[in-house]
Amino acid sequence: MASELPDMTLTAIGIVRNGIKQPPSQGWGEIISDIVVNSGLTEAVDNLNEFSHIIVLYWMHQVATGQLPTKVHPMGKQELPLVGLFASRSPNRPNPVGKATVRLLQRRGNILKVKGLDAIDGTPVIDIKPYIPGYDSVINAKVPPWIIHL
Amino acid sequence: MASELPDMTLTAIGIVRNGIKQPPSQGWGEIISDIVVNSGLTEAVDNLNEFSHIIVLYWMHQVATGQLPTKVHPMGKQELPLVGLFASRSPNRPNPVGKATVRLLQRRGNILKVKGLDAIDGTPVIDIKPYIPGYDSVINAKVPPWIIHL
Repeated sequence: MASELPDMTLTAIGIVRNGIKQPPSQGWGEIISDIVVNSGLTEAVDNLNEFSHIIVLYWMHQVATGQLPTKVHPMGKQELPLVGLFASRSPNRPNPVGKATVRLLQRRGNILKVKGLDAIDGTPVIDIKPYIPGYDSVINAKVPPWIIHL
Repeated sequence: MASELPDMTLTAIGIVRNGIKQPPSQGWGEIISDIVVNSGLTEAVDNLNEFSHIIVLYWMHQVATGQLPTKVHPMGKQELPLVGLFASRSPNRPNPVGKATVRLLQRRGNILKVKGLDAIDGTPVIDIKPYIPGYDSVINAKVPPWIIHL
């Protein structure tokens, strides 16, 4: 299969700036970050401020690499059931790509100020998309009971 | 900046199988696809079936590369305003990574049957995450008026 697959190399389109060096104990909900988009892409950010929320894809560059477990306790909580890695949001994934839906507070030139982005300072951003409810949200989605403990 | 950035090379964790060679004119909503996860990762898919919906990140391997416009008409519709590339969901992006939220119909071993995935046959899958409403959805998100024409 490998021979028919394309080369899949990402380039950073921007970087996260928030001064945060490790995940805050109180969570990311109130954290304000700047996404500094590469200046050559400033025009590509136009009109994004017409949306209240954006989807950010980013490369979790400081997570451990190497041998990955196929099962994890969600959020590292031992009291929660051991589940398949892809049934979790653990950052330790084959491709350490994070996806966050965040509030866009302000756009100034190539800088997007956002709230709630769960990424540390210096995280490479690989894509930004507008959040479109009809495409990105689901009514009455079912989740397992252990999700309420997250 | 480049010198401090990590190498960001993706590996496929699976592949889309649906027999579809080009985007269907009637849209993707009713399309059923199999995501064939690499067999070495079968255990990592455990428990995913406890969720009704999953988020799929995939590499849009057949989109044009090379020089990208920074402004596009959404969905290629000339009657819609020209907007910044990142304010659109155009597949022609610096990193051609697609993100879809789809219904998980069935999991059998390393095969996930999903509905509504907008990816052609042979598309490399780079990540699968559970859809968690509290993290992935937004109440009363604002979008511009041209979105209703999509």
